[in-house]
Amino acid sequence: MSTSDILNPAPTATSAATSSLVEILESPTPLQTAKYTDFVRDSSCGAIATFEGTTRDTFGEKHVVSLQYESYAPMAVRQLKSICIAAKNAHSGVHRIAVAHRLGTVGVGEGSVFVAVSSIHRAEALDACRYVIDELKATVPIWKKEVYDNGEVWKENTEFVGKKVCCGHKVKVED
Amino acid sequence: MSTSDILNPAPTATSAATSSLVEILESPTPLQTAKYTDFVRDSSCGAIATFEGTTRDTFGEKHVVSLQYESYAPMAVRQLKSICIAAKNAHSGVHRIAVAHRLGTVGVGEGSVFVAVSSIHRAEALDACRYVIDELKATVPIWKKEVYDNGEVWKENTEFVGKKVCCGHKVKVED
Repeated sequence: MSTSDILNPAPTATSAATSSLVEILESPTPLQTAKYTDFVRDSSCGAIATFEGTTRDTFGEKHVVSLQYESYAPMAVRQLKSICIAAKNAHSGVHRIAVAHRLGTVGVGEGSVFVAVSSIHRAEALDACRYVIDELKATVPIWKKEVYDNGEVWKENTEFVGKKVCCGHKVKVED
Repeated sequence: MSTSDILNPAPTATSAATSSLVEILESPTPLQTAKYTDFVRDSSCGAIATFEGTTRDTFGEKHVVSLQYESYAPMAVRQLKSICIAAKNAHSGVHRIAVAHRLGTVGVGEGSVFVAVSSIHRAEALDACRYVIDELKATVPIWKKEVYDNGEVWKENTEFVGKKVCCGHKVKVED
């Protein structure tokens, strides 16, 4: 099951004829990265930059078995759509952006998040790809549990700057 | 046919247990990007950044039909290997790098060059991926012909800073 959105913003001076694909994936299957790369590929573009976040097998001295992600998907999709629009406005020449994030268990070596960006020239694709993953980490309410071989712990994303409730662990969702 | 090299540098303080895959592909088939992404994927890494250069359908006012690339493959492989080593030395945490470049005809929308980099944290993968493609454009002797619907022209890469012969179009290869 996925909560997805193909975003076609109202044409503006900077984003006419562009579109974005945003997906929060609630199934335990690997990310279909080719789907997102194919979505952004276009004959008008000379560049595709991608970023994939994968589960590492260690955290400090601990042996990580898997990561588990949770989110309120509609809120995450809405924020990701906002990031895509901001990325296009901030980077002229960007044509399409795709962003996908898995929820649930993500095993070691598997991808949890994927970003693909196409643009006319390469600098904009590289810049916008970094912008999207940095903004995702900083503002999208997705929570992570690290599962070790001898226990587990919910981890707060140290980069997250979104609205937090006073316990400091979860995000207050306000429409 | 391809000229390739899996590079296992002598262990050093910064590059022990890392390796790189470099390929110059002389066949007219699409880049197998999953091959390179799979090569760099590792359970010790949390990030994979990639860049793909694709053929655009226009250059200025001209309608591009395809691009054609030529190179002296052994020279290109040697320079790409050097770039991979430099990238690892300049970006701690980078684990593996794969670089592939097609020669011959590359149709509109198809990829001509692909770079994949894995690292422990995301910043190094993103930085090193940009470093590799920028250095490739600046120093690897690969020549490009743009084929339009009404003609064709060899294009000098304006970023290229390698040794040039006096005609300004090709690179002097010195062993």
